[in-house]
Amino acid sequence: MIADRLGGLAFGGDYNPEQWDERVWKEDDELMREARVNLATVGVFSWALLEPEEGRYDFAWLDAHLDRLHANGVSVDLATPTASPPPWFTLAHPDAMPVTREGTRLVHGSRDTYCVSAPAYREAARRIASALAERYGDHPAVALWHVHNEYVTLCWCEHTAAAFRVWLRAQHGSLDALNEAWGTAFWSQRYGSWEQVLPPRATQWHRNPGLTLDFSRFFSDEVIAAYLEQRDAIRTHSDRPVTTNMMQPGYQNVDLWALSREVDLVAIDHYPDRPGLDAAADVAFAADRARSFGNGRPWLLMEQGTSTVYDQGRTLAKEPGEILRHSLGHIARGSDGALFFQWRQSKAGAEQWHSAMVPHAGPDSRVFAEVKATGEAVSRLGALAGSTVTADVAVLHDSDAWWALSSDGLPSSGLGYHSALRNAHRALWDNGVVTDFAHPEADLSRYRLVVAPALYLLSDAGAENLRRYVVNGGTLLVQYFSGVVDSRGHARLGGYPAAPLREALGIRVEEYRPLRHEERIVLSDSSHGTVWSESVRAQGAETIATYTHGALAGSPALTRNRCGAGDAWYLSTRLDDADHTALVSRLLDSAGVGPTLPGLPPGVEVVVRQGEDGRRWHFVLNHRAEPVSLPDPAHDVLTGGPVRELPPGGCAVLEGESPL
Amino acid sequence: MIADRLGGLAFGGDYNPEQWDERVWKEDDELMREARVNLATVGVFSWALLEPEEGRYDFAWLDAHLDRLHANGVSVDLATPTASPPPWFTLAHPDAMPVTREGTRLVHGSRDTYCVSAPAYREAARRIASALAERYGDHPAVALWHVHNEYVTLCWCEHTAAAFRVWLRAQHGSLDALNEAWGTAFWSQRYGSWEQVLPPRATQWHRNPGLTLDFSRFFSDEVIAAYLEQRDAIRTHSDRPVTTNMMQPGYQNVDLWALSREVDLVAIDHYPDRPGLDAAADVAFAADRARSFGNGRPWLLMEQGTSTVYDQGRTLAKEPGEILRHSLGHIARGSDGALFFQWRQSKAGAEQWHSAMVPHAGPDSRVFAEVKATGEAVSRLGALAGSTVTADVAVLHDSDAWWALSSDGLPSSGLGYHSALRNAHRALWDNGVVTDFAHPEADLSRYRLVVAPALYLLSDAGAENLRRYVVNGGTLLVQYFSGVVDSRGHARLGGYPAAPLREALGIRVEEYRPLRHEERIVLSDSSHGTVWSESVRAQGAETIATYTHGALAGSPALTRNRCGAGDAWYLSTRLDDADHTALVSRLLDSAGVGPTLPGLPPGVEVVVRQGEDGRRWHFVLNHRAEPVSLPDPAHDVLTGGPVRELPPGGCAVLEGESPL
Amino acid sequence: MIADRLGGLAFGGDYNPEQWDERVWKEDDELMREARVNLATVGVFSWALLEPEEGRYDFAWLDAHLDRLHANGVSVDLATPTASPPPWFTLAHPDAMPVTREGTRLVHGSRDTYCVSAPAYREAARRIASALAERYGDHPAVALWHVHNEYVTLCWCEHTAAAFRVWLRAQHGSLDALNEAWGTAFWSQRYGSWEQVLPPRATQWHRNPGLTLDFSRFFSDEVIAAYLEQRDAIRTHSDRPVTTNMMQPGYQNVDLWALSREVDLVAIDHYPDRPGLDAAADVAFAADRARSFGNGRPWLLMEQGTSTVYDQGRTLAKEPGEILRHSLGHIARGSDGALFFQWRQSKAGAEQWHSAMVPHAGPDSRVFAEVKATGEAVSRLGALAGSTVTADVAVLHDSDAWWALSSDGLPSSGLGYHSALRNAHRALWDNGVVTDFAHPEADLSRYRLVVAPALYLLSDAGAENLRRYVVNGGTLLVQYFSGVVDSRGHARLGGYPAAPLREALGIRVEEYRPLRHEERIVLSDSSHGTVWSESVRAQGAETIATYTHGALAGSPALTRNRCGAGDAWYLSTRLDDADHTALVSRLLDSAGVGPTLPGLPPGVEVVVRQGEDGRRWHFVLNHRAEPVSLPDPAHDVLTGGPVRELPPGGCAVLEGESPL
Repeated sequence: MIADRLGGLAFGGDYNPEQWDERVWKEDDELMREARVNLATVGVFSWALLEPEEGRYDFAWLDAHLDRLHANGVSVDLATPTASPPPWFTLAHPDAMPVTREGTRLVHGSRDTYCVSAPAYREAARRIASALAERYGDHPAVALWHVHNEYVTLCWCEHTAAAFRVWLRAQHGSLDALNEAWGTAFWSQRYGSWEQVLPPRATQWHRNPGLTLDFSRFFSDEVIAAYLEQRDAIRTHSDRPVTTNMMQPGYQNVDLWALSREVDLVAIDHYPDRPGLDAAADVAFAADRARSFGNGRPWLLMEQGTSTVYDQGRTLAKEPGEILRHSLGHIARGSDGALFFQWRQSKAGAEQWHSAMVPHAGPDSRVFAEVKATGEAVSRLGALAGSTVTADVAVLHDSDAWWALSSDGLPSSGLGYHSALRNAHRALWDNGVVTDFAHPEADLSRYRLVVAPALYLLSDAGAENLRRYVVNGGTLLVQYFSGVVDSRGHARLGGYPAAPLREALGIRVEEYRPLRHEERIVLSDSSHGTVWSESVRAQGAETIATYTHGALAGSPALTRNRCGAGDAWYLSTRLDDADHTALVSRLLDSAGVGPTLPGLPPGVEVVVRQGEDGRRWHFVLNHRAEPVSLPDPAHDVLTGGPVRELPPGGCAVLEGESPL
Repeated sequence: MIADRLGGLAFGGDYNPEQWDERVWKEDDELMREARVNLATVGVFSWALLEPEEGRYDFAWLDAHLDRLHANGVSVDLATPTASPPPWFTLAHPDAMPVTREGTRLVHGSRDTYCVSAPAYREAARRIASALAERYGDHPAVALWHVHNEYVTLCWCEHTAAAFRVWLRAQHGSLDALNEAWGTAFWSQRYGSWEQVLPPRATQWHRNPGLTLDFSRFFSDEVIAAYLEQRDAIRTHSDRPVTTNMMQPGYQNVDLWALSREVDLVAIDHYPDRPGLDAAADVAFAADRARSFGNGRPWLLMEQGTSTVYDQGRTLAKEPGEILRHSLGHIARGSDGALFFQWRQSKAGAEQWHSAMVPHAGPDSRVFAEVKATGEAVSRLGALAGSTVTADVAVLHDSDAWWALSSDGLPSSGLGYHSALRNAHRALWDNGVVTDFAHPEADLSRYRLVVAPALYLLSDAGAENLRRYVVNGGTLLVQYFSGVVDSRGHARLGGYPAAPLREALGIRVEEYRPLRHEERIVLSDSSHGTVWSESVRAQGAETIATYTHGALAGSPALTRNRCGAGDAWYLSTRLDDADHTALVSRLLDSAGVGPTLPGLPPGVEVVVRQGEDGRRWHFVLNHRAEPVSLPDPAHDVLTGGPVRELPPGGCAVLEGESPL
Repeated sequence: MIADRLGGLAFGGDYNPEQWDERVWKEDDELMREARVNLATVGVFSWALLEPEEGRYDFAWLDAHLDRLHANGVSVDLATPTASPPPWFTLAHPDAMPVTREGTRLVHGSRDTYCVSAPAYREAARRIASALAERYGDHPAVALWHVHNEYVTLCWCEHTAAAFRVWLRAQHGSLDALNEAWGTAFWSQRYGSWEQVLPPRATQWHRNPGLTLDFSRFFSDEVIAAYLEQRDAIRTHSDRPVTTNMMQPGYQNVDLWALSREVDLVAIDHYPDRPGLDAAADVAFAADRARSFGNGRPWLLMEQGTSTVYDQGRTLAKEPGEILRHSLGHIARGSDGALFFQWRQSKAGAEQWHSAMVPHAGPDSRVFAEVKATGEAVSRLGALAGSTVTADVAVLHDSDAWWALSSDGLPSSGLGYHSALRNAHRALWDNGVVTDFAHPEADLSRYRLVVAPALYLLSDAGAENLRRYVVNGGTLLVQYFSGVVDSRGHARLGGYPAAPLREALGIRVEEYRPLRHEERIVLSDSSHGTVWSESVRAQGAETIATYTHGALAGSPALTRNRCGAGDAWYLSTRLDDADHTALVSRLLDSAGVGPTLPGLPPGVEVVVRQGEDGRRWHFVLNHRAEPVSLPDPAHDVLTGGPVRELPPGGCAVLEGESPL
């Protein structure tokens, strides 16, 4: 466990000393001590320095930094620099540069300019990873390996085409199977030889959805294969844990369930995309995902910004107090630390305006003061290392569903996989409960409530799994346009969704009726729907709310079905946020799930971490602009004393079984 | 006549049995009988199966389907599959793939990936068409030939360039003539050799409008030439009629007047792009175009959706009743049938969400029930086959005007050819009259009122034709920015529009004054204008309404001129819809044209078909949400009984001279 | 001086006789006399006629036109036609066509299709310029040389790459220096050889801001070098002045300070992009820029439209009276003439809808009548030739700041260099004062007030220059996000802005807090801010207004600092227009600057030109819809009589020291 090596939770960030000089390094040492930094991610963008020309390595400068950090009590998360091939790589291997769907070959001058399927790239990446591991595998400073950075670059080149064909052969076995899976009888797409199969490059109209779905799956597997090559090269020389930092939902085209199985520690980057309470909810969303990808094991917040909130073309600053509150938000949900990108704000380069622990203004600044306070707070939480978080509720999450829901030719541009997931999670967060994410085919028996939003693609096994979950006593809420296609993307026939799910839900969906752009409808219970509606026939289910207008007037909008020992609900439109939260509240009641700590006003978040030894810590985060009184005075680990009230924006970590 | 072969009006749709298996084929046979299907379009996307590798044909599977359909009483509209070359074609003839304006060569993986000017494509298309005709030319099932599908793919490749040059030589005769026509003295564009002429590929600023206009004309001629090669190959082996399905206005870059001269039966595809009453008006618009392209002859609705309404990135479902009402809307205006794309909703492929006669949910569905009802209704209308529709009003329609109005560098982005045509047609539809479309150089003497919207380009002959139409007693309404350039796209000098039109209108337009984005002005008669205004000098015309503000205050906005035996009106702004409808109403009164059936509330559409023998059928379509009473009980062919009232959304086909 | 040769101020426009025939030329001669045209720009787009094939020249037709113009009393501004290479050039030198960032090579068919770095283009351009100068260098008609037209085409091709590397070597000396300047340590971008350096072509994420800044500088220098080659070739054969026409702010990627040093007469093109009063303010903005680029010397309005106002995808017509009023607006601010694009509206070609002095409608038109009136007015102003305009206020203007503020990765998409400059200029214009533009490193001592908007990049020398300006008694207003990076684009550390400016302003900016899209905040003085806010610490400065909400509540928004003999103000947000104007008014008062003529209502513009001999002319332009009374009757040069009142839209040029 990383915390063992660090003697507590991790605190620190990306550290790029190669951008600075000796005078700054000295100040870094001092400020890191002040801020209680114990982990620095080094080398993410150092390829050009480590291998200044192909095959010639220069490690001396890195030796010095690792020794210096070690001497200063800072461990190192050592990165392989493979996300940013140096300029010489472009000239030596032009065929390894990525090619867009339209055929433009990209060049260096930014980062992430590589084709993950190009042999020259893969070989160069494996080689530099191996060289680093050989040299630093046993270095006492090294606590963790950080393979690559945010795998993301898609490519449509000839290397990609070749690798795609290899993957397809393995997946489908025969061309006949591929033709059947992709429905190539339509639009005269039948492939007569493997050579005819191309990546989904620029074409005239809608692309075949089987092709694009498989291309997404292929790309994900290709990324994982590239990761594994580096991981295995490192393991040859080092016994330290290996990970890679995963990105925001929707950004990284990888099956994070699968990738998470291959890392020793799930690590994520997180930058909220809206300010205020929305950012806090987004912290919870990201953290719950990360914990779930690792099956509940502690994970690590690898990157956050001290003052970075993306918002409609702007990078907003964080509000005072959010550095600590967001850090605790992640730790509350299972992160064994809080790291930032980056330690010191670059004075030049493409991210010179990305916030950092030491801003341009220097240590005499609000940001660095908050960083120090956060470092101190995190340092007091060492006992929490390895403790875990338990949830009674899960939201289903599946990359296949996401990718399939990105197909061309769907009935509405108002659908969106991750926004649907975020809406479902938010409704639960607003109800004060902690949520897991789960794969549709996973064992769900530990959950009292399972929510399935936007589960457009659902395998036969997944559909049966959900049915069984309900039969065995679970409460399930399936939302519109779910269970619609099978694992090949073929539509479910005879009425949607997949038959086992129809049985569980006691309904049959006959047709989809997308709503107009900005159309808003009223249901019989006065709730409002947008985006979508469906013609649903109750086949055993109880109708809870009906549509009130148009072709669907009087027909079911929301249903509940008793099936075996459980309850299965179906919601056939997208409810407004408040209505959605109210529905989820009703389901939580019905499933017997209450908030972690009842009686608190909205905007006060409470999460419990529990150690193997049964010790429990209640994180209380007051996101409100008003103070909040706690029912009973309790011991706050952050201050080491009793706490009766949290000020606006204040936080506490209360120790004890039921501290309030 | 297709109806003779079918024994009535056509009913059915695209049928792609290659996507299904024997069990489904059996069900198809049964359901087709239930739905009274008598025509199935087969083979549109079958190239990859019919010719699985270059030059090797496999017809056995198609033999079986044709025999099966025939045995089941279903005739076949047999398609050549040339809209969708198979994957092997891309690899064998990469030079025949289309290239975008920016130089990206597209690949297969969708449909319509071909360059219509590539010799390899043209040869392959002719060959497969010929092979099909040879095999099935006399097949008893075959009632119609369906060449290609929705010709549309533009290309800017070297083959295109070569063909364009050949076309230009033929059109212009000499480079000097081309240089003069395109005004190449401007911007130093004078061509010194034919090789220097390129398609309008990506360039730095505005493209030469002569070049782009001629490229549009060339492309249209090229498509027609490609069609003719297939048609003639088919005619060698078959005596059945040949057609191709034409697309929505604006979508297909072809002169549909010219293409219609080459088909044995005009056939169109129609998908409304707004719901509700707008969709009904759009049905009328599309149907009136189709009838006009065929000079009033019966035509065929080749494709519509059972539940497909495109609307701002969404595909809306149709309202209950619209399958029948839209079908009758087309038939009322001259279609000898109602076909759909497609019979059975695909379970896979890029159009798996395109609606169909048998939806995913299967026959136990609202959609299939309505399909059956529609099939029954259509089956009762067999006596109408070959009957025609007469209009007293025409809207002028010319591809040259459309293409020229798509030039770079026009004074306003608020202009749009087809939206102007639709507005004009809609104002007439709202007034309850049936409208023809007519070419500006056509004989217009049969019309009492002619409306010319957006007729930016108008040839000398066209201008003289309009003048003569007025002199001979016609009523003409010319709308803003019409008659502005000649057939080469050269501006009319000395005042707009073209001189004969100035004479007819009794005005001279001195300058254009485009309105600002969303600017709305008031005229002296309280009507409102947007988009455009003009400085008009009355030269004999009476001023009916004036501008009230700004530079044009007090100057004419709407004029009327007595010229010979007729009246010529000029409207120099774009009126709001209600004001436009009121103006058209006034013109109809003045021209002595009344609604087909007076006294009905708005939203009740009435159209008359009349047989050669004088039999007349009144189609009455109630698009309202309220019932409508008919003045007198009448015999409804659909029910075989008397009808006194139409329910909301209801339809009737009343037989008799003046049945009400 | 051009006016000497013309015997007065210039009046006329681009003249393209090659588009017309003898009959029209005859009419041209007559109409030019009527309109008092004395200068025609000839040959801008004549390359294809002058050199119909490579190396073969045909000057005969041009001889005839020059002789004809000369005989008619019209001098010629003779253009080199190098902005529009003929079609043969594309085929002969495909490598000289421009290539987009994405790699698309553009072709002819428009204009400006050339790569300014391609040797073949440069040689061809120099050759035709030389041939023209040799033939017409001493032609009595030629009064001015017009090199090229609106240099603008960017390119990313291999020639560009090679030239860029040469430029970089010269600028940076060594690769180490380049690597340091661009901060290539970040994102592993260290260059190991010059060959690795590429133009900023399509890449994966943000581009390196050092690379893009240097590419902008390189392109500007390259354009100037291309200009100089032609200028020097001309000077070998001709003693007439040489210029090139500069474009709108933001359109032409050239450092206009530098280019202006190389022309004998600054010449600009100006087309307003909003109508009405905004257009009048834009005339002033463009004119003040042009005068400033030439260090106050008279300049020339080379192009304006008689009826061309670009506005959101539309080309609006000018209001009646604006041809004269805009012309006088330019002349008032130092233009020694008023020229138009173009004399006669083209009947064909890509700009057939561009307005002209003789419109399509012909001489019997409002436009030509106003042109004649304007020609007469200009002809009465001959005595003003060479007189100048003095300003007490300057707005800082620097291409480096503009380019740097176009970098990828800035904190807000709401920033915009030229819009900030226009806002600052407009606030001064609304206060009735005439404004210069000045380079940040220029001698500012002559100004009482200097305004620095959007001065994101500020060199060390510039920062020190501003400090010294204040110390010596100046009043300085620095606006948000200024002084932030140095001349290499490196962030200022230890608190923004650059240290000398921090000292002058008595503040330290600690962090930036961009506002949300459309967020609007209130300051303590009730003014409103948008786009941006900052955490400012006063270090000696007086706080004039504070923020009132959120993280910055109570902290300084607007400060004033006494520094030496001067005052330095800092504004850390973007004020609403009215608040901005009020603040500028306060600063003008404080700096002792009053309007040119006090007591006039808003919308009446007054500017003074003064001759070397002390003669003074007051231009009074009434942009209002109401008449304006003048305090005292005065002698109006335009009418030659006294004037007491200006009608709506009216103008006067009053002669005398203090005529009112």
